[in-house]
Order: sequence, then C-alpha cells, then structure tokens
Amino acid sequence: MDFSAPFLTKYWPHLLIALIGYLSLKFLAQRLSGKERRRRFSYDPARQLDLDDDHEEDQEVAGGPLGLEETTEHIPYRPKRYTEKEMLQRSVEFYRLMDQRRTVRFFSDDPVPLGVVQTLIKTAGTSPSGAHTQPWTYVVVQDFSLKHQIREIVEAEEEINYRKRMSATWVKDLEKFRTTWEKPYLDIAPYLIMVFKQTYGIGPNGERLNHYYSEISISISVGILLAAIQNAGLVTVTSTPLNAGPALRTLLGRPVNEKLLLLLPIGYPAHNATVPDLQRRELKDIMVLM
Amino acid sequence: MDFSAPFLTKYWPHLLIALIGYLSLKFLAQRLSGKERRRRFSYDPARQLDLDDDHEEDQEVAGGPLGLEETTEHIPYRPKRYTEKEMLQRSVEFYRLMDQRRTVRFFSDDPVPLGVVQTLIKTAGTSPSGAHTQPWTYVVVQDFSLKHQIREIVEAEEEINYRKRMSATWVKDLEKFRTTWEKPYLDIAPYLIMVFKQTYGIGPNGERLNHYYSEISISISVGILLAAIQNAGLVTVTSTPLNAGPALRTLLGRPVNEKLLLLLPIGYPAHNATVPDLQRRELKDIMVLM
Repeated sequence: MDFSAPFLTKYWPHLLIALIGYLSLKFLAQRLSGKERRRRFSYDPARQLDLDDDHEEDQEVAGGPLGLEETTEHIPYRPKRYTEKEMLQRSVEFYRLMDQRRTVRFFSDDPVPLGVVQTLIKTAGTSPSGAHTQPWTYVVVQDFSLKHQIREIVEAEEEINYRKRMSATWVKDLEKFRTTWEKPYLDIAPYLIMVFKQTYGIGPNGERLNHYYSEISISISVGILLAAIQNAGLVTVTSTPLNAGPALRTLLGRPVNEKLLLLLPIGYPAHNATVPDLQRRELKDIMVLM
Repeated sequence: MDFSAPFLTKYWPHLLIALIGYLSLKFLAQRLSGKERRRRFSYDPARQLDLDDDHEEDQEVAGGPLGLEETTEHIPYRPKRYTEKEMLQRSVEFYRLMDQRRTVRFFSDDPVPLGVVQTLIKTAGTSPSGAHTQPWTYVVVQDFSLKHQIREIVEAEEEINYRKRMSATWVKDLEKFRTTWEKPYLDIAPYLIMVFKQTYGIGPNGERLNHYYSEISISISVGILLAAIQNAGLVTVTSTPLNAGPALRTLLGRPVNEKLLLLLPIGYPAHNATVPDLQRRELKDIMVLM
C-alpha cells in the first residue's frame, strides 16, 4: 500500500478497472463453484448415515436419484437379543478391554500374521459411512525398504518442525520424552497402516462424485479398527503425518482423490514399552443425562 | 456492477478509496487471524495422537510446553499377549460380530438399562485424541418430552429440505423408502445420544485453548462407541443433524465451544425392522498390500 499520490493521479482509471475486475472475477468464481457443486450432487437412497441429513447446508438439489432400482430392496433385520444381564456383562467386559488400550510408541519387531491384519481391515470396513460411500483405502506396508522410505519422509518433515517451527526451550524440554523427530518404530513395527480418505468418488463415466462427511466416516471406521487392534492384543499409535502427506501419497502411488489421514504402525509392544501416566476424564465429565 | 459512466466519473475517488479500504481491511484481518492462531497454540507433551504431528501445517510455534511436570511420568505397559492362534480367532470373532452391525431406523420402545448406556459412553471415552484433549461431550436424553422437542426441531428442518431443497421427482421416488422428513424413532428409541464436539477448550483462567484434530478424534471415539453398541446387542443410526445443530445445542443448554456432530438414537431394533440390502466393499477393494 505504498502508492505515491502522483502515481495514483495518473493511473487511477487503470487501478480502478483492475480492482473492479478482481472483485467481479472473485464474485463470478464463487457463483460458478456454487453451481458446480449443486450440479455434481448425486444421491444414493441406501446411504447409511441418516439419509435425509446427508447434504450440505442450504444446498439446492436438482435431478432425481441415481440407480434406485438396484438398491431399493429391504430385508428383515433380526439380530441376536441378549438378556439384560448378558448385555450388561458384555458391555462391562468390552469396556475393560478397551480401557486397557494405550497409544504405544515402542514396538517389538516380532512378526504378526498377515491374516490377522487382513481381518482387522475387514473389520474397519464394516463401518457406516455417508451415503454408504465407504470412502476409505487402507494401504498396508510390510516391505522393509518401503517402511524405511516412509520413515525418512516423515522424519525429514519432523526435523524441520523441531529445528524451525518449535522454540529451543521446547525442544530441550521434550528430550526426556524421547519424542524427537526420530521415529524408529516406523522401521520396527511389522506393518504400517496408511489410512487414505477418498475426498471424492469417481463415477462409471469418470465423473467426480461428491463424498459427504468423508472425514467423519473414515474416522469412525478407524475407531472400529482401533477396537479390533486392541481386541487382538496388538498396539498402535494414531499419528497424523503432518506435512508428509503428499510425499507419502506419491511414494505409495495413490490417486489424487485420496488424502493420507492417519499413519498407524501396528505390532506387539516392545517388552520394555512405557506409556505416559495419563488419566481419562471420568464418566461424569463426559456424559450429561437429561 | 451496474454503475453508469457519469456516476463513475463523478465519484471515482470515493469508490477507489472504498475498494482499497476493503482490500486493506481484508488483508489485515487475514494477518491478524493468522497471528491470533499462532499465539493461541498450546502444547501438551502427553497427547495421544502422535506428538510431533499435532500442529497445523507450517505453523510457527512460540513458547514452551505447558504443565510438563504434572504429565511427564512414564509407566511400563505390559498388556496380555495372545498366541497367534488365539489372536487370529479373536480377530475373526470380532469381525463377525461387527459385520452384523447395520444402521437401523426401526426401533423398539423396550427400555434399556441406564447402566448399559453409561458403560457404552465410558467405552467411547477410552478413545485416543489429539493432545489427549478428549474433546467430547455425550449428552444422553431419556426424557420423553425432551426427545419429542428434539424430534420437532429435526423434522422442521427436514421438512424444509424435502419441500424446498429437493426436486418433486426425487421426493416422490423416495416415498417407498419411508425416508420422509418424519423420524418417529426419535420418540421411540429409549435414549438419544447427542454427540457434541468441543471445538476449542477453556483453560484454567478462562483462556481459549486450541483443540487439534478434534473432529477426527471425536469421530474415532464414536467408532469405538458403535463397536460397543453392537457388542451389547443394541442398534443405532449415525445421523448428522443437518441445519438443526444450533437449535439443538440451545435446547440442551450446551456451551458455545461445543458443536453437535452426530445424533445417535439407541435401543433394541423393532421386531419388524428392515434394512436396505446393501453390500460392503470386499477386502481387495479397501486394502492394498505393499
């Protein structure tokens, strides 16, 4: 904003036109992207998130539903019904099992059967999702060299975080927690589960399909995966690969509609594993009864 | 953009000043909000999402860690280790249990013991979360009148969706699926679990604390809750209360830092419950092994 007065006096019509042009283009771009969004909206009556809520606020919807005929069949649902006593007991046992779960950063390199990992991923795949889009791809990396490349990419970004993005005091204070940018567990854990979110879908004719609530959906799926991992007696750390997502996506050859959401190493805990002595909020602090 | 030429000729300095002022203010506002975001950053070494990744991209970080002393203690972690055979068997059994889960919209009004619901919420509370912030509040509504008010709020918004936001063809096609704006299950289910995300925390001196990855964290927690609900033999529908969030937040008296993310009715399925005949993606379509 360092315009001198003579410059302004001389060139005001050009400046004014430039400014008006900028604002007009911006306005037009917003209008067009709004139209585009409406046009792309597609509808699946069989979605599992509550049907009627699965579009964006104040979004206008044109056109009819797609592929209704194939997905309209309804079938009876008759799950096993437990007695109250059984239900309470099952609930308490499951709570105790889940309550033993901790985020662990110290892994054993003991091998884990691939069949177990496949079953865990299948379990994650039972999750509900917006419009039943199932917007998840779980890339399981067992190859040693690939795991090491992943470690190098993640550590390179982390080193920048530590050296440039954090204060010296902070870094020093952190030393005793062994939470430097070094992540040996990325080499040691027998598998790395790379959780990719499909930010949009691709239709039969290559058209882009909106995915609604894909981040909530895939995170719910990861919650079910964490329960399955804990149930199997394995451990993980739910890490978010800050800044390293695009490089990792390229390394693993994933398409552009997929975005790395989480990186979960999986294996047995090391024999000398430790965890910070954290406490969970009590029931009265997380539940309100009305 | 319907300015006539004489108007422009006469008032161009005022227009120019207004435009430059607008752009300057916008620029300043962006700068300030960026600064504000950096300044508000706080750090907890005990977070459960992977420590080093838990801040935003390229975010500058000033100041040291908070409250280190209270949270630095590390304790050994020695969970039960299953044999390979046990682990595989447990995995398969858990998968089969989860695979029977379906989103159900037809509820029985049979009562469910409150103790079960409390245990389910405790189980959700075992979830990991960014910086161990545990950014969730589960409001459990059992009061009939309050459930009915919730139904009225949700249906009022849904009716607008059906009458104004969707085409006539679409609405007609939907009739056979009974997915109108009417949601009788909100009255019938013995409990409604209202999942509130804490978008930011409030510190001991009333200061606002950033919550990182709170939506991922609470959604993971909901995934564990869904696993617990299924394990107990109960059903739910993971609904997103489109447009009705603010009214429901007010009705339930939740603070401004909480946002309604999901509404989960919970109970037994009705004896004549049906579900759409959906298929899940196969393992080969959701898992890539490298």
